[in-house]
Parts: sequence; C-alpha cells; structure tokens
Amino acid sequence: MSENISGASVLIVGSVALDSVETPSGKVERALGGAAVYSAVAASFFAPVRIVGVVGKDFPSEHLAFLSARRVDIRGIQVVDGKTFHWKGSYKGDLNQAETIATELNVFQSFKPQLPPDYRSSQYVFLANIDPELQLDVLRQMESPRLVACDTMNFWIANKRAQLLEVLKQVDVVFMNDAEIRQLVGISNITRAANEISKLGPKYVIVKKGEHGALMYCGGSSCFSAASYPLQEVIDPTGAGDSFAGGFMGYLARCGTADEMSLRKAVVYGSTLASFNVQDFSLNRLQRLTQKDIDERYEEFKRMVFFESLS
Amino acid sequence: MSENISGASVLIVGSVALDSVETPSGKVERALGGAAVYSAVAASFFAPVRIVGVVGKDFPSEHLAFLSARRVDIRGIQVVDGKTFHWKGSYKGDLNQAETIATELNVFQSFKPQLPPDYRSSQYVFLANIDPELQLDVLRQMESPRLVACDTMNFWIANKRAQLLEVLKQVDVVFMNDAEIRQLVGISNITRAANEISKLGPKYVIVKKGEHGALMYCGGSSCFSAASYPLQEVIDPTGAGDSFAGGFMGYLARCGTADEMSLRKAVVYGSTLASFNVQDFSLNRLQRLTQKDIDERYEEFKRMVFFESLS
Repeated sequence: MSENISGASVLIVGSVALDSVETPSGKVERALGGAAVYSAVAASFFAPVRIVGVVGKDFPSEHLAFLSARRVDIRGIQVVDGKTFHWKGSYKGDLNQAETIATELNVFQSFKPQLPPDYRSSQYVFLANIDPELQLDVLRQMESPRLVACDTMNFWIANKRAQLLEVLKQVDVVFMNDAEIRQLVGISNITRAANEISKLGPKYVIVKKGEHGALMYCGGSSCFSAASYPLQEVIDPTGAGDSFAGGFMGYLARCGTADEMSLRKAVVYGSTLASFNVQDFSLNRLQRLTQKDIDERYEEFKRMVFFESLS
Repeated sequence: MSENISGASVLIVGSVALDSVETPSGKVERALGGAAVYSAVAASFFAPVRIVGVVGKDFPSEHLAFLSARRVDIRGIQVVDGKTFHWKGSYKGDLNQAETIATELNVFQSFKPQLPPDYRSSQYVFLANIDPELQLDVLRQMESPRLVACDTMNFWIANKRAQLLEVLKQVDVVFMNDAEIRQLVGISNITRAANEISKLGPKYVIVKKGEHGALMYCGGSSCFSAASYPLQEVIDPTGAGDSFAGGFMGYLARCGTADEMSLRKAVVYGSTLASFNVQDFSLNRLQRLTQKDIDERYEEFKRMVFFESLS
C-alpha cells in the first residue's frame, strides 16, 4: 500500500494532554499526549482527520503545528484560559499496568465538545475515552455517520453506567480491555461477556489485550483473533490503545467500508500502529513513521499468523 | 483430514496420576490424569503412541484399558507396590491459576523410566514435566530421534537448573509458560527471553499462554502467533498444556516432518486438542472426541485468524 491519504474523514473526540511518564526506559515531562492526539495521528496515516478537544493557553504551539503538518484538521480544538489536562504516571516491571501519580484535569474538566459545522457530516467517528455524557453530546451533533466507535474506562462503567449504556446503543464498535468487559456485564468468561455486550448495541466488540493481541467479536456469530507484534523492547505503552483505535478507524475511512473483513484488516492496521507507538515515548515514533514502515509490519503480521490457507 | 492414525511413533514420558480437582463447574475425585496421560491421549488421535510412566497397585485397570483402546502402547507403564501419584488442586475465578492443595508423589517419587527395547527407536519424543535428571536418563536410552520436545516447571528451574540446562541442549522444542521463561533467563520481555532460550539449545521455543494462545519462536528468526479458541465455558483447565503438547507431537509424527511450517500446523492442532480437553473434567472430553470434531475446529482456527492472504 503506497502513501494514500484519502477517503472519508475520521472525526475524533477526546483528550488532548500533556503527559509526564516514567518507564524502566526513561521519562518525559509534559510531553504531547491524550487519547484524541494518539488516535488522530495514527488515523492520519490513512485518511483525513478532524479532531475535537480542548487545551489551555499553556499548550505549546509546536504540538498544534505537528498535528496540522500531519493534515489533522485542528479547528475543533478549543484553546481556553487555564492549563492543559496533565497526566502523570509510571510503568514498572512488565509494563502492563500504568500507575497514575496525578491527574490534573484543568481545562478538560469543563470540556464541552463543539463541532465546527462541516465536521458534522463526518462518516467515521471515534469517541475516545471521555464522560459518556459528552460522547452522547457529540452523537447528537452528528448527521448520519457510517460507523461510530467508542472507548471507555472503569470509572465511567462504575459511575456513569446509564449514560454509557445509552452510548453503547448508538455505536457500531466498542473498544474495551478484559477487565472493563468483565466489569460491565459481570461475566468472567470473555467470549460470553463480549456477546452480552453486543446485545447492548455494538455489533463489534473489540477486546484489547495489550501484549496478547486483540479479539474482535462480531454480533455473537464470529470471533477474529489478532496477534500482537513481538517487540524486543517496549519503551512506553502510553497511547497504545488509542493509536490502535486510530489506525483502525483511519483504515476503514480510507476504504469507505464497514464489513467484517474490512474490520479485521483494520484491527491489524490498528495493531500495527500501536506496535510502533510503544517503541518510543509520547508521539515520537509516530512522528517519524513512514508508509513503508506500516506496509512492512502489516505484511509481517500476515506471515506471523500464517499456518495454512483457507480451504 | 479423515481418521488416519499412522506415521512414526510418539514416545511420551511423564506422570500418570489420579487427580482430585475442584473448579467453579464442579469437582472430581481421583480421576484419571497426569501429564503423560493427557499428552498420550491427545497424540493418539494422530499417530501411534508409546507411554512410559509408573502407577501403584491401586491404579484402576479401566484406565489402562482406556489407553489401550486408544491404541496407546502401555508396556512402558510400570505397575509397582504402593499408591499412584495423587494431585489435588482447585481453580477459582478466571481459572488461570491452579491452587495445589496436595501433591502425594507416592510411587512417582522413585520413578526410573525404563524403556522397552523397541521404544528406543521412536522418532518423536515428548519429555513431559518431570525431574530433568529423568529426562536426561530417557534421552540416554534413545537411539536417534527425529524431534525431541520437553516441558518443565518452576520447581526444576529453581532447583535442578544445571540438569535442566543439559536437557535444553539436547531438545529441539521446549514448551514453557510466560512465567517459566522469565524465571529461566531473568528477562521480562518474552521475545528477548525466548530468543535467549533458543541459544541454550532448543531451536523452537513455544510459549503457552492459556486463554491468550501460544507463541512459537524459531531460533531468533521468526515468530508464529497462534490463537486460543474462544470457548464460552471452561470446565477444567487441568491438562491443557499436556494435551497441547500431545496434539503437537502427534501431528508431527503422523506427517513425519520437523520443518517450521509443519510445526506451525502442529501448534494449531495442539491448541485444538487443548481447547477440547478443558471442556470437561479429566479425560472426559477427549474420550468422546472424534476426528470430525478435530477437523472442524482446526478449520475454525483458520477462519478465526484470517484477514488477508499472503502476498
């Protein structure tokens, strides 16, 4: 696949942040981060991207310039008085679990997504992990998207359950990890839990398992199992799930499709983007990523799972 | 693939046991178990199997009859005075971890593998999880096997390290779980750890990850990622790793091959057998398993990981 940023637009709504992260490999202070940023940059390798978020006056203009240079439409980023959302966390040992040291919501606390009028006709929508009330607010502003996906987290499952269930009714795809899936439906078997979640709305339930890859359950009828790329070193897992979602959405928007086989390929492109993202801090690896890098790793994913052709 | 028990013989050495197991689905008392039994029965769906182990006089003759009925050669099972190895354990919650309540080694404590002379020319050898000194003892009795695989556990890694390293020098394939791999080489990244283990001898390092599938690292040069079958219910995980190894070895023996692509298919047949095995207690599911069941699930594995043909 050669450089080809085309197709429908992806609308992404979520956090734009400054992250202070420490891992066994080193640390960064107030580096570019946020779910919307990771997913927008990942999606930008495939399709035009529009981002909706909020930053404070302290947000370095070079970060906005970086997004613009990647052809991400940043008119949906509100710049308001105050400080940008700041997350501080650390990863230890096997890097599977972040320990949050500080979450300073700052201007993100009063975030109200406002979509520029021409964003409303976007065909592919990714609602990153934010308050489900805001996710619903975005959906009310949309015209008739082709495919809507959302992310969420344990806090919303516990504290905004009714609103989250309303979001799930309206989305086609939900991204969750094992623990969130079990928490949402109270079933420990992931296959049964995912099928229960499908009954709540989303035809596709994508289970993000980090180093163990991803599963995509399709309406209780089939299951796609995707590998994780066997990296020799993970530098910083921050943004892995969001770059996964971004690569997934970007690929679908470029194809303009929403069938199961396209979604399977999208999962692998998502895994590809996530595998690059964790190879450096912040957005550093994605900044220097090329289409050739993506194509080669996607081919590696194909070889990595091959054992026999379909009959 | 139709019923076709043929090819080279698989020699399996390991525990023959009576297991008392409790899981959220129920419990069994002194049911047939043991690593050699699970792997022998799984392998018996593909190739002729020879088993080496020891039982006490209390071992029910119906279990030996069951093995014989599956065309497992049981002349290598010594029946001695005393009681059979008895393991008592329970699984809770997500079934990923067994809690051992009792390990009564009994006659297994003084087990010395004695191979009937005609066993020594076996071409495929699986050294199930036993003292590495005994694994070496078996290898000394072998003529020139085509492929040797071994399993091990945390206890031997900690307490018989030198002997285990000597075993690793002499095997082609080692089966280990994540924790054992990390323990053996002290590296938390699984890819780097597996590649280090390859340098100790085994060309193929197979990482058993339970519900997350399996990885097969090939001499530091390639990695095969195999899915796990998305079961709606796991009744009893006991013997999953051993039925995996048995299906793996049996398939290779039937093909008479030892190339990487055969080993990849063997991993999937191993996953197939393991996925059936955990659907009931003891050997109950394997007892009623048919070739058609195996063929259908193997095809499901192919569909489950498919997203695009190789270029």
